[in-house]
Amino acid sequence: MADPWQSAYDFAVEVARMAGEEVRKAGESEIKVQTKSSAVDLVTKTDERVERIIIGSLKKKFGEGTHCFIGEESVANGQACILTDKPTWIIDPVDGTTNFVHGFPFVAVSIAFAVNKELEFGVVYSCLEDKMYKARRDKGAFCNDEPIQVSDVEEIKKSIIISEHGTDRRQEVVSKIFSSMQRILCIPVHGLRGSGTAATNMCLVATGAVEAFFEIGIHCWDIAAGAVIVKEAGGVLLDVSGGPFDLMSRRMICANNKTIAERIIKEIEIFEVTRDDTQQPKK
Amino acid sequence: MADPWQSAYDFAVEVARMAGEEVRKAGESEIKVQTKSSAVDLVTKTDERVERIIIGSLKKKFGEGTHCFIGEESVANGQACILTDKPTWIIDPVDGTTNFVHGFPFVAVSIAFAVNKELEFGVVYSCLEDKMYKARRDKGAFCNDEPIQVSDVEEIKKSIIISEHGTDRRQEVVSKIFSSMQRILCIPVHGLRGSGTAATNMCLVATGAVEAFFEIGIHCWDIAAGAVIVKEAGGVLLDVSGGPFDLMSRRMICANNKTIAERIIKEIEIFEVTRDDTQQPKK
Repeated sequence: MADPWQSAYDFAVEVARMAGEEVRKAGESEIKVQTKSSAVDLVTKTDERVERIIIGSLKKKFGEGTHCFIGEESVANGQACILTDKPTWIIDPVDGTTNFVHGFPFVAVSIAFAVNKELEFGVVYSCLEDKMYKARRDKGAFCNDEPIQVSDVEEIKKSIIISEHGTDRRQEVVSKIFSSMQRILCIPVHGLRGSGTAATNMCLVATGAVEAFFEIGIHCWDIAAGAVIVKEAGGVLLDVSGGPFDLMSRRMICANNKTIAERIIKEIEIFEVTRDDTQQPKK
Repeated sequence: MADPWQSAYDFAVEVARMAGEEVRKAGESEIKVQTKSSAVDLVTKTDERVERIIIGSLKKKFGEGTHCFIGEESVANGQACILTDKPTWIIDPVDGTTNFVHGFPFVAVSIAFAVNKELEFGVVYSCLEDKMYKARRDKGAFCNDEPIQVSDVEEIKKSIIISEHGTDRRQEVVSKIFSSMQRILCIPVHGLRGSGTAATNMCLVATGAVEAFFEIGIHCWDIAAGAVIVKEAGGVLLDVSGGPFDLMSRRMICANNKTIAERIIKEIEIFEVTRDDTQQPKK
């Protein structure tokens, strides 16, 4: 079988668009928020409903039991977050829940697919902008069907870097995040930005709008699809220590090239986070 | 004359759209950058050309000599930046030049109009998003002709705050900017964002996507149009000390309400900037 996953890829794009339309519609009606772990990590009924819709569609298409699923809401509800060799869908129904609740214009549906622990494709639908980003391994990256590629900037001083403050408000964590950002700004770079969603941030690297995005504390479902998109757009992915990218480590930098990534890495103050695949299920 | 400035308002919207189309087209062709005061304050040929187009159109419509003009590029080229009682246009041809150069999706044309030192109307065209924001004194604020209004959030802990790191990279300035942001994040608030353009940030306050935007170091052309839009959308404008808003002071906070504004003000570390109207002309 020369191309076993093309139909899955095409279907993922369809499902992401359909899910994004649900998210957009929900945003127009009143939003009821239920607090999760803290006031800054909002979860809405929309997240849970849209994840059910996505997983339901995929199970119906590919058969119950043949594929595995890692979804933000499923994990929050106690399911394990382990990547095996089986065909596995990694899903964030609403990346940028805080943005969604506030109507800030970056909200994305993120769907990735891995086989033998290797990412085969990723789809990020930035649904308020109506931008469909997608990439399949060795087949290039696209936004609304136009090929995209990372920026060709080589000089750090001509770069824009994107990052996020995260949801952890412990003083020692916040201080390290701000310290890293300040050190990077003063390299100096052209600027720092933050859209409020990791998936969109990665797509901004893939289109060349920014040179790099890094964050500690993200989850595999935030970045799995974006990882394929950045790589296929010509970019690089690394651990924030400079070692190899590890999807489950909750630490990542992606950039237009290795030179930019390694320069940023020098300024990042690392703090501890628990890996996605060693978290204890909640019950 | 009951409504002397309606036709000027309508014309400003036309001119902003036309200018935004020029900016969008220029972004699609190769961009030649010439450095201004520092590597982070980029200016492109597009800025200068679009400002000439805007001022040329307004002079043609309203007659040479009857109206005054304060434009970012004109002031950079040595013209005075003084607001008199005469009808005065305050123009930023490309707010977010760094974004523009990088293709980051927030770039705005900002056109405001003041008479007797009072702002009569403001137009902000976010040209990559194709969002036309406008407001006239006592007549409400609109985005693409739909009425907009600020968020009704009263609790600071449920807010998103937007700010910018600015273009000044002196250590004492950067440290105060980061310190203010860190203090605000740890109130805590839902999040911090930064779009890279003051005009767009103010429109995000006006639509309710964020609760407040503050910055020290902005110029009158960055915020004049946005000031009318925020006010007409139901928001408030203050100096970062809590005193009255002063267009020429280069310091501002705008928010959905006074409670939110005053809570943020407590955390802002103020640094000195030279007023727009006391700067020495460059030659």
